[in-house]
Amino acid sequence: MERLPGFRDFYPEPLPHQDVWSADARQYIFAKWRTAARCYGFREYDGPPLEPLELFTTKSGDEIVGQLYNFKDKGDREIALRPEMTPSLARMVAAHARNYRKPIKWFAIPQLFRYERQQKGRLREHFQFNADIIGETDPAADAELIALLIDTLRMFGLTAADFVIHLSSRNAWQDYFSARCHDHTKSYEFFQIVDKLEREDLAQSDEKLKALGFSLADVNRFIEAGEPTLELRAILENLAARGLADFVKVDYHVIRGLAYYTGPVFEAFDRKGEFRAIAGGGRYDNLVKLISGGKVDLPALGFGFGDVVLLELLKARGLLPNFDSPVEVFVLIEDEALRADSLKLVQALRAAGLAVEYPLTRTKPDKQFKRAQELKARHAVKVEADSQLRIRSLETRQETVALLAEAAIHLKG
Amino acid sequence: MERLPGFRDFYPEPLPHQDVWSADARQYIFAKWRTAARCYGFREYDGPPLEPLELFTTKSGDEIVGQLYNFKDKGDREIALRPEMTPSLARMVAAHARNYRKPIKWFAIPQLFRYERQQKGRLREHFQFNADIIGETDPAADAELIALLIDTLRMFGLTAADFVIHLSSRNAWQDYFSARCHDHTKSYEFFQIVDKLEREDLAQSDEKLKALGFSLADVNRFIEAGEPTLELRAILENLAARGLADFVKVDYHVIRGLAYYTGPVFEAFDRKGEFRAIAGGGRYDNLVKLISGGKVDLPALGFGFGDVVLLELLKARGLLPNFDSPVEVFVLIEDEALRADSLKLVQALRAAGLAVEYPLTRTKPDKQFKRAQELKARHAVKVEADSQLRIRSLETRQETVALLAEAAIHLKG
Repeated sequence: MERLPGFRDFYPEPLPHQDVWSADARQYIFAKWRTAARCYGFREYDGPPLEPLELFTTKSGDEIVGQLYNFKDKGDREIALRPEMTPSLARMVAAHARNYRKPIKWFAIPQLFRYERQQKGRLREHFQFNADIIGETDPAADAELIALLIDTLRMFGLTAADFVIHLSSRNAWQDYFSARCHDHTKSYEFFQIVDKLEREDLAQSDEKLKALGFSLADVNRFIEAGEPTLELRAILENLAARGLADFVKVDYHVIRGLAYYTGPVFEAFDRKGEFRAIAGGGRYDNLVKLISGGKVDLPALGFGFGDVVLLELLKARGLLPNFDSPVEVFVLIEDEALRADSLKLVQALRAAGLAVEYPLTRTKPDKQFKRAQELKARHAVKVEADSQLRIRSLETRQETVALLAEAAIHLKG
Repeated sequence: MERLPGFRDFYPEPLPHQDVWSADARQYIFAKWRTAARCYGFREYDGPPLEPLELFTTKSGDEIVGQLYNFKDKGDREIALRPEMTPSLARMVAAHARNYRKPIKWFAIPQLFRYERQQKGRLREHFQFNADIIGETDPAADAELIALLIDTLRMFGLTAADFVIHLSSRNAWQDYFSARCHDHTKSYEFFQIVDKLEREDLAQSDEKLKALGFSLADVNRFIEAGEPTLELRAILENLAARGLADFVKVDYHVIRGLAYYTGPVFEAFDRKGEFRAIAGGGRYDNLVKLISGGKVDLPALGFGFGDVVLLELLKARGLLPNFDSPVEVFVLIEDEALRADSLKLVQALRAAGLAVEYPLTRTKPDKQFKRAQELKARHAVKVEADSQLRIRSLETRQETVALLAEAAIHLKG
């Protein structure tokens, strides 16, 4: 029986097949995400992976349904697997905003799901580090969020030579649009064209822009000039004060296609341009109000940072560590008469926090020792007569003798 | 907009409402589960939350469909949200068993889903610590798995006064059945009656047993005698050698309703009998063969240990710690002229691994200090002229002065 197309199996390393993913690398990434968030004072939250379909259509319109895993449950409810975290966050914040001091700084590591029929061979799920600040309009919040993104990437060993944040502003584009067009119903289409400028055929973009009354040459001049708005200037100065100026640049190519962004927006790219965007986000000051049906009105901003591109990038830059087995001590049982004493030792060492393996059943001594080496245990330990213990370091090959009762002291650290 | 019934929102503590769950407690539980598994040499894996429906019906028969979140995806595939992890594990092991040395010791912490229409108000998802050993028939493997369960519970501060593992054997029941009935098609029904013996009306059970040719009195005598089989005796001796004898007792009431168990089975209960089973598991030597369509035949055993009953038990026994905000240092910015220098300090402290908060915007000094106290920061720190730093311990109220460049040294540890 096969797993579903677009879904991943995560195995312990070394990986048994190129078609599967590393559970160890996944945990490594999650742990770094959590550590970075914690340093920045962000608190963890999570919502359900299943939500009412309406939560997502309210935010993104009915077109989103074509990209969702959605169905009717046995209670006739229209439900969907979450394709993104922000609507759940807005729902949760709206429900209990009064109980939290603003600004709220929260993060989550949800698994997200998208069903796009045409994308055969592409993943239909991924994990995403989501960090959001809610309840602060000042660009200082945008800078704080971008600094978190930068420092999270740096925690993996990536440097300013590896990645850069492209900073842009929906406000700048809104002003550009408004100065040239008074029909605001066209702004979404205009933003969509700008969003695709670097990926689509230029002649085609030119034509589309003309149809809306714009000129590609003028749009390009605006992008080239890259004149930062006041709020972008404040963000850049804030990041510079932190010593992070090298990690960010203004780039008006970035506009973030989604309809709901309202202020500064940004995307993280690898410097060599080999991969898709590593992460992206921005301000969405109207979403909490929209999701709460007008009951709660709070400014907000956030980013999403997926595990797939990050993993590709870390592999390409040689920044993924080796994930060996966690075993620290291997207890050899060469004499079955000493099995009970050996089990007692295993128990004592584990109780002291050590990761311990031993042969579950009668096994030839040389096979046991080979197994200890395969597991890259630091020590092989053997119970001997008179409650004595023979400890062999598998690194230095040195042997020591200790009392059974003092085993943990000898083997820790 | 509301979340779906039976699903949980996880918020940072202190909880804003009794109807929501603690994301901090969840992380606390997951971390302990991972630490225990690591000590026992178990490696982490995970599969997709969505699987082909057939994976679950192959294992449990078509009746299971009534309890699943199942639907057709847009590619017309019959799929289901996983109600348990074991079928995915069997699928994964069957696919790549050759690449792993036996016994395989793996664990996972999946979220599992069940849709049971009648159970209004009850949860439809939970998280479950799953640990399995694959490729070993010897009862030493059963003992190792049960020891992991015991030590995991102990890591939360629970003692032999709080919980006990009820150990039983499908083989013992199979022998009991075979000695009295030669129609093996009736064994599943018989096991079901025994499984419900403690929950159902005795007269009703008696009647059902009679219909199958059994007697309640005789069944009860067998349970009362509780004569351990040879394999149970081996497990008990093994656990005794580890010093864990107080945590386990033979109880033939336990039989584990599911059809696929083949050997020793067990359930963990709180001693006071206030809660449902905390965890349960056993041997399922035929499942890998079944799931792999006969291609891979490996003995296996495992347990499932959910987060919901555990959390209730820990709360009831006062064993849940306080989950304060993670903030260690609060950087006060009383003079906006020093904001840039203060941001530099924030950055340096976070780079040193400290969890740091500061006011994002101009804030009155007394409000800042109050916020530092609310967050239970250990230190409040202020940049002063000449790159000097004033550090105030919020525990001892002591003040020290340090150089900006040495801030991290003063504030760590």
